[in-house]
Amino acid sequence: MGLFHPRKESMISEGRKRVVIENVRPEVDGGKFPIKRVEGEKVAVEADIFSDGHDLVRAVILYRGDGVKKWREAPLRHVANDRWEGWFRVGEPGYYRYTIQGWVDHPGTWLADFEKKYRAGQDVAVDLLVGADFLDEISERASGKDANKLREIARTMREEKDAKSASSLVLGDEVREMSLKYPDRKFATTYEKELPVVVDRRKALVSAWYEMFPRSCDSAGHGTFANCEKMLPYVSRMGFDVLYLPPIHPIGRTKRKGKNNLPAAQTGDPGSPWAIGAEEGGHKAVNPDLGTLEDFERFVGKAREHGVEVALDLAFQCSPDHPYVREHPEWFRWRPDGSVAFAENPPKKYEDIIPLNFETEAWKELWEELRSVILFWMERGVRIFRVDNPHTKSFLFWEWLIDDVKRRYPDAIFLSEAFTRPKVMYRLARLGFTQSYTYFTWRNTKWEIMEYVNELTRTEVREFFRPNFWTNTPDILPEHLQYGGRPAFVMRLILAATLCSNYGIYGPAYELCVSDAMEGKEEYLASEKYEVKRWDLDRAESLRDLIGKINRIRSENPALQSTWNVNFHESENEKLLLYTKTTEDLENILLIVVNLDPYNKQSGRIRVPLEELDMAPTRPYLVLDLISEDKYVWFGEWNHVELDPHVMPAHIFRVHRRMSREQDFDYFM
Amino acid sequence: MGLFHPRKESMISEGRKRVVIENVRPEVDGGKFPIKRVEGEKVAVEADIFSDGHDLVRAVILYRGDGVKKWREAPLRHVANDRWEGWFRVGEPGYYRYTIQGWVDHPGTWLADFEKKYRAGQDVAVDLLVGADFLDEISERASGKDANKLREIARTMREEKDAKSASSLVLGDEVREMSLKYPDRKFATTYEKELPVVVDRRKALVSAWYEMFPRSCDSAGHGTFANCEKMLPYVSRMGFDVLYLPPIHPIGRTKRKGKNNLPAAQTGDPGSPWAIGAEEGGHKAVNPDLGTLEDFERFVGKAREHGVEVALDLAFQCSPDHPYVREHPEWFRWRPDGSVAFAENPPKKYEDIIPLNFETEAWKELWEELRSVILFWMERGVRIFRVDNPHTKSFLFWEWLIDDVKRRYPDAIFLSEAFTRPKVMYRLARLGFTQSYTYFTWRNTKWEIMEYVNELTRTEVREFFRPNFWTNTPDILPEHLQYGGRPAFVMRLILAATLCSNYGIYGPAYELCVSDAMEGKEEYLASEKYEVKRWDLDRAESLRDLIGKINRIRSENPALQSTWNVNFHESENEKLLLYTKTTEDLENILLIVVNLDPYNKQSGRIRVPLEELDMAPTRPYLVLDLISEDKYVWFGEWNHVELDPHVMPAHIFRVHRRMSREQDFDYFM
Repeated sequence: MGLFHPRKESMISEGRKRVVIENVRPEVDGGKFPIKRVEGEKVAVEADIFSDGHDLVRAVILYRGDGVKKWREAPLRHVANDRWEGWFRVGEPGYYRYTIQGWVDHPGTWLADFEKKYRAGQDVAVDLLVGADFLDEISERASGKDANKLREIARTMREEKDAKSASSLVLGDEVREMSLKYPDRKFATTYEKELPVVVDRRKALVSAWYEMFPRSCDSAGHGTFANCEKMLPYVSRMGFDVLYLPPIHPIGRTKRKGKNNLPAAQTGDPGSPWAIGAEEGGHKAVNPDLGTLEDFERFVGKAREHGVEVALDLAFQCSPDHPYVREHPEWFRWRPDGSVAFAENPPKKYEDIIPLNFETEAWKELWEELRSVILFWMERGVRIFRVDNPHTKSFLFWEWLIDDVKRRYPDAIFLSEAFTRPKVMYRLARLGFTQSYTYFTWRNTKWEIMEYVNELTRTEVREFFRPNFWTNTPDILPEHLQYGGRPAFVMRLILAATLCSNYGIYGPAYELCVSDAMEGKEEYLASEKYEVKRWDLDRAESLRDLIGKINRIRSENPALQSTWNVNFHESENEKLLLYTKTTEDLENILLIVVNLDPYNKQSGRIRVPLEELDMAPTRPYLVLDLISEDKYVWFGEWNHVELDPHVMPAHIFRVHRRMSREQDFDYFM
Repeated sequence: MGLFHPRKESMISEGRKRVVIENVRPEVDGGKFPIKRVEGEKVAVEADIFSDGHDLVRAVILYRGDGVKKWREAPLRHVANDRWEGWFRVGEPGYYRYTIQGWVDHPGTWLADFEKKYRAGQDVAVDLLVGADFLDEISERASGKDANKLREIARTMREEKDAKSASSLVLGDEVREMSLKYPDRKFATTYEKELPVVVDRRKALVSAWYEMFPRSCDSAGHGTFANCEKMLPYVSRMGFDVLYLPPIHPIGRTKRKGKNNLPAAQTGDPGSPWAIGAEEGGHKAVNPDLGTLEDFERFVGKAREHGVEVALDLAFQCSPDHPYVREHPEWFRWRPDGSVAFAENPPKKYEDIIPLNFETEAWKELWEELRSVILFWMERGVRIFRVDNPHTKSFLFWEWLIDDVKRRYPDAIFLSEAFTRPKVMYRLARLGFTQSYTYFTWRNTKWEIMEYVNELTRTEVREFFRPNFWTNTPDILPEHLQYGGRPAFVMRLILAATLCSNYGIYGPAYELCVSDAMEGKEEYLASEKYEVKRWDLDRAESLRDLIGKINRIRSENPALQSTWNVNFHESENEKLLLYTKTTEDLENILLIVVNLDPYNKQSGRIRVPLEELDMAPTRPYLVLDLISEDKYVWFGEWNHVELDPHVMPAHIFRVHRRMSREQDFDYFM
């Protein structure tokens, strides 16, 4: 092949591969980044697959765990317009790969052509001889028994003089089945990329988060981990399975912020937990006011006993007092006057926070130190990290860090707290974050919610971005909660918990419906970020029982344990949002109606998508409201609902697809 | 870095590259295939570009010819939502590469922050020192004169005690300009792929093809190249610049087809030119009835004198008499009865054609022989090939072949005659075909035409698929030409010639409005494929003069010399198709209205897109019909037209954007 152009030669070492495989989905950034799944989830695969000419093509998905030699196979079938579809199911957490293989099916092509010629009454004598040769060839790949049978058929095809009888033998099931069972893949094309999948444990997709400042757990002074243990039954009864703590490390004293983010702290002000590091230590230390490292470890264990996993906050930044500032001045930016550069977004200044300089000459040492922080807490039983402002640290750093940690701990979960521009949020998800905060917090109208949820679940975003819907955070008290009263809190909770299988609240501010904001801002007045709170958890208006009920509904209904199965439907009233969540087998069907207006009763007709739910339009069906436990018998597509936000702004109906009729009665027949 | 995971390590040899570049357009199949341009055409480039944090980012396009060491640069600017845009212009034919480079602009970020702080009245004393260090740094990259100036400014910034005066120096144009002129790209990110462009000569984008059977050029017997020379003034006067000849090789005698594709030829029947090869030779020989190889070469030269380039047909298949069948039996499929397999699409049989077997063990020798066929004709002055049924030969073969030939002859043009499924057509275009046949031949209604042309020009298809609109071919006499009479021939000609800068007709059947078809088929009755024709070119109804005028309009109006600039607009009448073609500078604006109904007069209002054309809604304008040479003065967007297909089914208006007014008169002022 001396004449071949050097750039193309390697590609064409085998010129007889006639099948083309292209436009494979899912494929994130050309396979650079993995798609995300949890154990047992499906990967639906599509591709354009075709050959030159009119020959029949066959194709399969190949998939395997990273490090496994042997590929497993899953079928692909042609749908239309040269598009093929199939799926496979991933196993335990770790990395997987998949690709596609396609080949020309010569015996199959011959068989189809033979049938056409035979039916057109053409002479097929020579075609029978051609086919006999194919069968002999197949027999060489076949098991002993099948091989014998194939050779026997081939012999008959060569010897049988009666075309009709030979043809009926050829056109029987046996020849077709054997040719499919023993394909000739000599010249099969394998798609040029092995596409990666990262498989996480189930909690990556189904989790209910509760954020709580441990220092507010005491009824008198500064809370400790010991006090926090008493909160565990409370959190557990509400049904949360992740308890996320803001940073638990020593807090800097220099430039410490006062209450309401005042530039100077008063005596006794505890400071923001995100101003990490003091003489007591940095990211691997525990704030002595909260207790010791042993107390923390004990708390993590106790939480686990309550079915609650503790998540830590990874905020890679320092207070001016952090030991790193003295020990590793090379990791920070210094100004000509000898001062260290604090965080700014001019004209705003954050003097209690010193950012790390990811452009330091010593970036490798910095990366390794930050990884050691994670590994430190991993060794103490933590597996979930909520990462503070990841979009202000280097993307390459995260890509390396998460990959590295997940190869050691495939059960690690990283939640990206990046409330920033969409391209940046999606990049962080692609490069490895397990879950991500979203714009849900600001999506209120029917159109906004539908459009955003559809973007997350019905576009390529679904392959790499696992949303976690938060109603509020210590930084964000959204306007609709400021003005909507308790009905708004109920409504937003139900939306978050049912639209998305990962959701979270910052409490107890949430369940106590705290709505006082800084004037003109979406920030809490007297924010817990800057002071110790004492919460009266027993206040009558607390949502704790309702939250417990909603989380119970989530755990009892598998349809709520996925984010990808939401479908919006028509309702006549713009304030009524209607959606279904269903399991694939339609054994669990939820029909959810939410009144988005926290002030007024809203009513109107909604359209139940009977056809999609495989329900007969001619039979009545039962819908059971899992919140109120009321039952209704409905008939047909359009049904009337009315929701008073002051009573309950939503129905979560479980739909019973068919009601019993006389035919179902024992004595009917 | 021993701890880095081996798979990620190479990627992260430099961890300080903070800019991300992704979602680059155009990028065909992840850069596997080149985009297509002709010399002097623009490549508009887009990408998502951003960094972590709030620092300013800068980016440029890098591009160069293959083999050139040094990159050239073109600017990129941020549009919105982290999307950046720019463009560059390609030069002479050959391969090019482009990529993107982006970096964090530290001095620019400092400058922007400085301005905000200064305007907010903050103390900027230390910031001035920080900036002075930046200027010193820039001065190290600057030319002598600029370096001096920068050091001078830095000195002032350090020494000037009056903040206002120092600040006004900093915020002047000079500092900003210098920082842009001498960027620090130490940690610049270069996009991971160098994306290919194949640049063709201009004829790849702008060509008018005339297909003609040379054997029908004589008024008495079998035409010869010598007779064909007499046709050249005729073809040239009609304005065609490519004369495409069906295969000119010896035609097989075994199983030769008769008139109307009858299974057996009568004495004197010339056979189909696509049944290539006889004792006189194969793909490198000339049918003796047409003349000698020398006659052909002379004809090619004569054609060039008339401004017409001869294109040959590449039909890689053989008649049973082709020398290959004897000399290379290993290139064909043989059946158990010792016969060679002919072409079939059961139950249809094409006994006069023997396909090549691209799965032969000797595929390398076969590929090289087929390439030698092209090189043989290249050496005889042919540069354009219309490739017969490329979709029935191996895709890999074409990919190798076209790339190889174009590296030797960058002026080679390959037209893909694949009337097949869309994915297959687009693959052939991506892998290298210069131009492609299209579905235009069957697109008749307004919606069909708009939808198809928009797919070709406004989607990614535009990057790799150069359409060539054919009104008819020897194989296809579309139904609308069978039934629409002369008006349909005129209308389809104008559509092809104005919608697409590459178009073609099969003549003289087209200009003579031949419309007799096989019963119930889209095939010519008494097709020229199977017999020698004698055409009366002087028939009164011939379209030759109109075709000449249309091609003259194409060559005089640069707006018709691109396919990518078509824009459809509203018309009240569904039968009236309205579109503009404009040059980028709006110096040449064509407004084209076509009556798609070949039977009836149609009229209605059409909307002239004044805003898009940068025309004042308050001033009258002149439109000149380039076909009839009639002039109209119009005013405002909506104007009335009426088209009688029996007179002329279209207007090709040249729009004069402004008419002179009293102010333009010499004596007005």
